[in-house]
Amino acid sequence: MRKSEKKIERLINYRRVLIKLARDNEKNIFSHQLAALTDATPAQIRRDLMEIETSGSPAHGYNIENLIESIDDYIGKESSKNVAVIGLGNLGKAIVNYVNNGSENVNIIAGFDIKPEKVNRVIAGCHVYHLNDLDKIVDEKNINSIILTVPVRVAQEVAEQVTQAGVTGILNYAPVNLNLPDNIFVENRDMIAAIEKVSYFSDH
Amino acid sequence: MRKSEKKIERLINYRRVLIKLARDNEKNIFSHQLAALTDATPAQIRRDLMEIETSGSPAHGYNIENLIESIDDYIGKESSKNVAVIGLGNLGKAIVNYVNNGSENVNIIAGFDIKPEKVNRVIAGCHVYHLNDLDKIVDEKNINSIILTVPVRVAQEVAEQVTQAGVTGILNYAPVNLNLPDNIFVENRDMIAAIEKVSYFSDH
Repeated sequence: MRKSEKKIERLINYRRVLIKLARDNEKNIFSHQLAALTDATPAQIRRDLMEIETSGSPAHGYNIENLIESIDDYIGKESSKNVAVIGLGNLGKAIVNYVNNGSENVNIIAGFDIKPEKVNRVIAGCHVYHLNDLDKIVDEKNINSIILTVPVRVAQEVAEQVTQAGVTGILNYAPVNLNLPDNIFVENRDMIAAIEKVSYFSDH
Repeated sequence: MRKSEKKIERLINYRRVLIKLARDNEKNIFSHQLAALTDATPAQIRRDLMEIETSGSPAHGYNIENLIESIDDYIGKESSKNVAVIGLGNLGKAIVNYVNNGSENVNIIAGFDIKPEKVNRVIAGCHVYHLNDLDKIVDEKNINSIILTVPVRVAQEVAEQVTQAGVTGILNYAPVNLNLPDNIFVENRDMIAAIEKVSYFSDH
């Protein structure tokens, strides 16, 4: 059975925070300290860590190195995944710059577009290919996830093309629901919907 | 009591889809059709719409205009909210361009930065002010929500400044947890975490 999506998301976030702390030579952490650095409550953190069979001591909290190892064992060790961006408009370009300059874990190694002025350029270390070369490059570079930042009217069509090329994970920034086979993992990140939501709750 | 966050989010998304359909002169819709256009299941949609006291007919589905009105009654009519962006780096600029050219509902009316080369410029119809003018502009323009795209090391400090100026909703793109009073609504949209999540599930 697929592990709970929310839990995996939390564990990934704990690990990112813990890796930073380990680099700063921190040795131990209490659940309430980890809670302050993440989105979770101390109780949630204790439950999650109990489920991955790690326990802390009341006096010293959790050992940070052990915790990172336990998370690695549970969800798989962080390995650099090959990710591509489809659509190098303003948003696509900003994402490439942001991710390739800001993350050590994720690397966007290819971009795809159809506009001649974008194809064959390099943006923040990422080569932009023509969308026609998708099958070849996905195969050559072993790309399993993509970030979709194309206009809404072509999003479904491009998403189908991408999955036919063998991609199984899509981070979708196009403000439209994608209809794809069940084995494709899609995470929607519609910015306009997010802003509307925040606007709503800031008033209530 | 605060209405369920997930439900409000779904209703906002239904409404966006319905408004587009109404513009295309569509009159009626079945729950399975609305499901295909959103992230929800037909059963979820029927439950949500029953709770806002709207019912469809087995033969014709839901009347689209009535549905939009019922959602308006329940969550409040869509009114153009005044939103600002803090941090006009690549990501902040891309968001302003994307939102102001792509949405009719949300309008980013102000930007804030501290770099002299950014202050007093206009990006996609959005004037960029110095962060020192935050209190004044938030007050003058009645801004209740902001999008935070500042570097991680200053995110907490800027978020505090923003809430002290009277802002109560933050869409946070900085990859860090913000510690703020409970009455501030924060939605985290850490891009790196999203990509890691998609990468993980595309493999499992």
